[in-house]
Amino acid sequence: MAELLTVDDPDDPRLHDYTGLTDVELRRRREPEEGLFIAEGEKVIRRALNAGYGMRSMLLSAKWVDVMRDVIDEAPAPVYVVDPALAERVTGYHVHRGALASMRREPLPAAGDLLAAARRVAVMESVNDHTNIGAIFRSAAALGMDAVLLSPDCADPLYRRSVKVSMGAVFSVPYARLGDWPRDLRTVREAGFRLLALTPGEDAVPLDEAAPHRLERVALMLGAEGEGLSARALRAADTRVRIPMAHGVDSLNVGAAAAVAFYAVTSGRPQP
Amino acid sequence: MAELLTVDDPDDPRLHDYTGLTDVELRRRREPEEGLFIAEGEKVIRRALNAGYGMRSMLLSAKWVDVMRDVIDEAPAPVYVVDPALAERVTGYHVHRGALASMRREPLPAAGDLLAAARRVAVMESVNDHTNIGAIFRSAAALGMDAVLLSPDCADPLYRRSVKVSMGAVFSVPYARLGDWPRDLRTVREAGFRLLALTPGEDAVPLDEAAPHRLERVALMLGAEGEGLSARALRAADTRVRIPMAHGVDSLNVGAAAAVAFYAVTSGRPQP
Repeated sequence: MAELLTVDDPDDPRLHDYTGLTDVELRRRREPEEGLFIAEGEKVIRRALNAGYGMRSMLLSAKWVDVMRDVIDEAPAPVYVVDPALAERVTGYHVHRGALASMRREPLPAAGDLLAAARRVAVMESVNDHTNIGAIFRSAAALGMDAVLLSPDCADPLYRRSVKVSMGAVFSVPYARLGDWPRDLRTVREAGFRLLALTPGEDAVPLDEAAPHRLERVALMLGAEGEGLSARALRAADTRVRIPMAHGVDSLNVGAAAAVAFYAVTSGRPQP
Repeated sequence: MAELLTVDDPDDPRLHDYTGLTDVELRRRREPEEGLFIAEGEKVIRRALNAGYGMRSMLLSAKWVDVMRDVIDEAPAPVYVVDPALAERVTGYHVHRGALASMRREPLPAAGDLLAAARRVAVMESVNDHTNIGAIFRSAAALGMDAVLLSPDCADPLYRRSVKVSMGAVFSVPYARLGDWPRDLRTVREAGFRLLALTPGEDAVPLDEAAPHRLERVALMLGAEGEGLSARALRAADTRVRIPMAHGVDSLNVGAAAAVAFYAVTSGRPQP
């Protein structure tokens, strides 16, 4: 059982994992360096634990102790009970979800290991918005993608905002980062995957004509909101696919486009 | 050609259409009563005009006059040039898109008229979040839905935030409001539509098994984020359909779910 420790000094060094949570630049640097990430709220904390992540500590206000009693009882880590004003002073914001946990990062798997076990992979290029990364992971998990590969400049899926928007789905779908972009896409192809690049380009094949659900192994490449995939990434793909647009609309938002494409590559299709 | 009028008094009554734009409650009441809506930013203003909406007036800062020159030349309405600080004082926020237009609302069509010309209709129940309404309209337009029907308590698609998030798609897809909910769903069925209710319920038919793309006329019913469709609405449907979930995820967000369902009902499917 975890120790339950009341803390009333905002400068207490035991709260260091939780300081300055609203300073995105600071946290982006600190969290990977220090080997931690922050899970926020009861549901996300439980999902992180269920996924096997180790807990460094937990920070909660008194009224959350009962709700989290079973988690506290099992946590092999100190649990700090603070009042909401102190939590706000330390973190920089009003923690309305009442509980935060500092969790241990695990080394990311190698892309090759993920590819060996997967048939449906999402590959993201330069998606550097934490909300978009989280939303795409939620859809990737829900719609049955087996793994995610990230270009070197994609945002961190374990950043607090990504984790929250994904509703913890970043813990469910294994992911790896490619080191050499777009050259490492060759290893994806060599693992037997067909590389489909999602683009609004008029010369691309409509997604349903491409019939990606019939392919044995598919890697679906997605770019960032606005720019889309780079020319280099498009050249590295086997096939460019597009979601046909109606009513003169030029694009879907990246989250909607990703969801549609994941559905198209994962769903069994009935006979027409 | 429109008059170009410099205004430097924030209390000038000619700026009345633009006052208190950040007061959601006030604007929700005022705009329908006064028969106007606000289009924000160059792209959205152009799309509103292209869709045939009349302009009451436009408000912009001096540096936007050149960009909007052709719009100004054609606008049969006064154009107020103000400095950014005054625009902020009047509207309540920093108008970083530089241009606002007050547009005339048109009477909504009757549901029956829309149904007569449509084969693919989205029906929303209690979607009262402006961001979600906008996102769903954007996907509905992009993916080729022919019309949208709204329950009485859905948010206003012409509210500024909805318009912006939809990227103007609320101007492209015709929509109507049902007056008696869920009773008016009968008129949808009587117009030859099969009513499919999207739900996470385990007893629902997987979306691809339902093969909605083969149906002549489909009305796809969607509920709000969180609650989903009401029990009454589910009872009024012909078939409950679900998007199968993987990795233990319990749901997609409403925007992603809508996009997937719109794709499933609008796309031609290849032979498996």
